[in-house]
Amino acid sequence: MTAKKSAEVIIDGKVYTLSGYEEEGYLQKVGSYINNKLNEFNEMESFRSLSVDTRHTLLELNIADDYFKAKDSVEKHELAIEQKEKEIYDLKHDLIADQIRIEDLESKIKELEAENRELLMKKSKLEASLEDALLGGMSS
Amino acid sequence: MTAKKSAEVIIDGKVYTLSGYEEEGYLQKVGSYINNKLNEFNEMESFRSLSVDTRHTLLELNIADDYFKAKDSVEKHELAIEQKEKEIYDLKHDLIADQIRIEDLESKIKELEAENRELLMKKSKLEASLEDALLGGMSS
Repeated sequence: MTAKKSAEVIIDGKVYTLSGYEEEGYLQKVGSYINNKLNEFNEMESFRSLSVDTRHTLLELNIADDYFKAKDSVEKHELAIEQKEKEIYDLKHDLIADQIRIEDLESKIKELEAENRELLMKKSKLEASLEDALLGGMSS
Repeated sequence: MTAKKSAEVIIDGKVYTLSGYEEEGYLQKVGSYINNKLNEFNEMESFRSLSVDTRHTLLELNIADDYFKAKDSVEKHELAIEQKEKEIYDLKHDLIADQIRIEDLESKIKELEAENRELLMKKSKLEASLEDALLGGMSS
């Protein structure tokens, strides 16, 4: 089990002591992300003139938008991974079919080579017999 | 260009008129997500007793955490896609190598078959010649 940790994170100028199972580095990263958004928003006078509640809600909507965009990306990536896995499955299937084809062709070659060797031997024997027969014919 | 749209979204009981390029359905989904989190948090008395500012900040941290988790997932998925693309590339490479091997074996088979046919023809001729020679020998 991971031990609970706590870290002090400054958000919008206030110190928050956060405790949980996350590393301090992660909590600081999340804090910085919120502060950066706040700084960006605060550059707009129209934002600064809104009520505290509305400012927070707009910030929440903006962060949630980042979340939904990332979530959408995760879903697209999952689909892409699924398709790639299917492609890999098909390619492996093709490779197995090719391996079987290669083995068949190799054994066909061995058969043909054996047949050829036998034919060559028979041819040599016939040539020798013919020579003998011709010589025998001449000598008779 | 997509036209700007506007939609009324209720968050924490307040109506916000949001305008942007997003579809109303999307904005309502984001709104619901925030409201659900708020409802969950508000079930805890310890949350309700916090200041408005702190409550909002905790909500922001929580949404940002969802975002970073999704972002992390995106990164992992991107890596997985990269690895799968490499695997597909390698498998395709192997398939091409197999195709070349199959073509080589097929042409080797054709060669052997041609040699085989030629040897069979020669064998037949030799057999005929031998028969002639033997018959000639007997008749002489």
